[in-house]
Amino acid sequence: MALRVGVVGGGQLARMMIAPAVELGVELRVLAEEEAMAASLAAVSVGDYHDAEIVLAFAKDVDVVTFDHEHVPQEVLSALVAAGVAVRPGPGALQFAQDKLAMRARLGELGMPQPEWAAVTDAAGLQEFIDAHGGRAVVKTPRGGYDGKGVRVVSAATEADDWFATLAEDARGGALLVEELVDFARELAQQVARRPSGEVRVYDVVETVQRGGVCAEVIAPAPHASERLREVAAQVGVGIADGLDVVGMLAVELFETTDERLLVNELAMRPHNSGHWTQDGAITSQFEQHLRAVLDLPLGDPTGTAEWAVMVNILGGPVEGTLEDRFPTAMAAHPGAKIHTYGKQPRPGRKVGHVNVSGDSLDDVAYEARAAASVFID
Amino acid sequence: MALRVGVVGGGQLARMMIAPAVELGVELRVLAEEEAMAASLAAVSVGDYHDAEIVLAFAKDVDVVTFDHEHVPQEVLSALVAAGVAVRPGPGALQFAQDKLAMRARLGELGMPQPEWAAVTDAAGLQEFIDAHGGRAVVKTPRGGYDGKGVRVVSAATEADDWFATLAEDARGGALLVEELVDFARELAQQVARRPSGEVRVYDVVETVQRGGVCAEVIAPAPHASERLREVAAQVGVGIADGLDVVGMLAVELFETTDERLLVNELAMRPHNSGHWTQDGAITSQFEQHLRAVLDLPLGDPTGTAEWAVMVNILGGPVEGTLEDRFPTAMAAHPGAKIHTYGKQPRPGRKVGHVNVSGDSLDDVAYEARAAASVFID
Repeated sequence: MALRVGVVGGGQLARMMIAPAVELGVELRVLAEEEAMAASLAAVSVGDYHDAEIVLAFAKDVDVVTFDHEHVPQEVLSALVAAGVAVRPGPGALQFAQDKLAMRARLGELGMPQPEWAAVTDAAGLQEFIDAHGGRAVVKTPRGGYDGKGVRVVSAATEADDWFATLAEDARGGALLVEELVDFARELAQQVARRPSGEVRVYDVVETVQRGGVCAEVIAPAPHASERLREVAAQVGVGIADGLDVVGMLAVELFETTDERLLVNELAMRPHNSGHWTQDGAITSQFEQHLRAVLDLPLGDPTGTAEWAVMVNILGGPVEGTLEDRFPTAMAAHPGAKIHTYGKQPRPGRKVGHVNVSGDSLDDVAYEARAAASVFID
Repeated sequence: MALRVGVVGGGQLARMMIAPAVELGVELRVLAEEEAMAASLAAVSVGDYHDAEIVLAFAKDVDVVTFDHEHVPQEVLSALVAAGVAVRPGPGALQFAQDKLAMRARLGELGMPQPEWAAVTDAAGLQEFIDAHGGRAVVKTPRGGYDGKGVRVVSAATEADDWFATLAEDARGGALLVEELVDFARELAQQVARRPSGEVRVYDVVETVQRGGVCAEVIAPAPHASERLREVAAQVGVGIADGLDVVGMLAVELFETTDERLLVNELAMRPHNSGHWTQDGAITSQFEQHLRAVLDLPLGDPTGTAEWAVMVNILGGPVEGTLEDRFPTAMAAHPGAKIHTYGKQPRPGRKVGHVNVSGDSLDDVAYEARAAASVFID
């Protein structure tokens, strides 16, 4: 009887679990939001993950339930746990990925380095924070944001008036998260895998290049990272994985400040765009590692297979025609590029695929990855 | 519209095309012989590949038809071609993989190095060949053999009496293939990918270790291979791919004689066990390469990602329990081993999975691969 993993959410992260699942011999079941989602090559059920009955029925046929995203409501997660379903990561961990205020508070308790922050319930509170932090700040909705959505840099509290209005309509009340605008030199990401037994495996800390709030490119390992920086990043990653009892893959997005401190920006408790390079550049990809972790199997070696790996997202895709139309050009010019597409309709700004290149010269690897990805754009 | 490849045959080779198909964004359809075959994670139809109607119906929904094995009858292949289906490799090439006598004759015309051979229609002819070749010879049924089946080393013609009796009952008549018993130092395999345009890509020649006529282990590249040996192997591979008009992956099994000549043993026109190391040890795996080739897309870089890669087959599998039961032990002891299983029921001698390990020390790599594979046996 094959091991069975159920993934709630049918996006590209679920889809990218298919390859290692097939290779290992793990059966993957996906609960997708709609037909024809990116993961539809696996055994797919279609249903609303907000509905506990649907998710419970889905969970019946699998050994463990995990996730393509962090949006499954706590009530549904609790119902699964109450029914004896292995839910990994569990609701206790996921709450911190679902609510950025809860995350900030918990990281504070754990002594993790993070930007100065506050929960603000009205414009006056926000303005006070802005005034105390040089006239600018980052305001975030605690829930529902991704890829730059739900995040605003503001210099006046009025710029968040619409969000405060929405808060006022919410019966649960609540607050916005405001953070200092960190003067960072660059953004990094630290990935850690953790299984229920507590075993952890640490990937190389990587540099992530964002454009318009969306990850555009990842360089692994982060160039010019000192031994100390790598150690601190690993400690922060492991500390958060342990402290929040994360099971599966954890990605910690970090700011590296101009004075070489690391501050935690965001968390993701699942495979993450910052780890797509591992598919072709590490002994154990983040997707295989996630499957191992949630199945409570011993974790694989996360070491890179080359000195450098660069991942470049295909954002938007071609204006005319399909991604496949560009295969001949991209493949002929870049035989060493690993091209990944997600079966998604091209749309401006949408992540529809990525390209990985590995090798011993960062200049060459970065050039190839960017050039190959650019074939699929415009 | 995604590119669609139809694979006739639902064995592990079709299954191993799933991962690169999902990653690239190619849709894979499999025509399996029965339910619950190894490839059943892809979109599967079930039907008999001897039936042209069934295969034609299957072919209607795909851009190209390719194969998990070489057993589809020529009549069926011809019907596909007549219907305008892209069949790759085509019937003209596949005939030489289906009939070892035809293969020997054609390789002779191409001037390829091969063992001395003859077509024998009766015991007298066989005995004559045996007597002329030191009292021993290899007899093969021209069709239907694999993994050592249909192959016998004989020292007297009477040892093939049953095969001659079968021939006599066959309305088409026919002959057996007899070959000299080559005094080889070791067995090698040369893989080449070729697309319809004629573009070829050559993998490193590898050493294959056979036990009981079944591939047990592959070392890539072949240790101590001289520059000259590698060049000759590549020339033979490319010469056969071109000469037989192969499209897709070609594996040429070779004897390296004690006097350093290379002789062609067998051919396979599909991904092959000797290339499983490429899944984790080459930039472009043989499975991705096969998809690219049959779709007439530019071929990928076949270069190895480490100095050495070793593949060890899991033959038979555990006497009690399942392969999955051994995951914890194998993974804990060998975090760098890439474990592949095929969803097949363990049975003595059956290929149910394999382990790949790559790295810079052949001793370490071979040790790890053998040790990890051995966890799944007995």
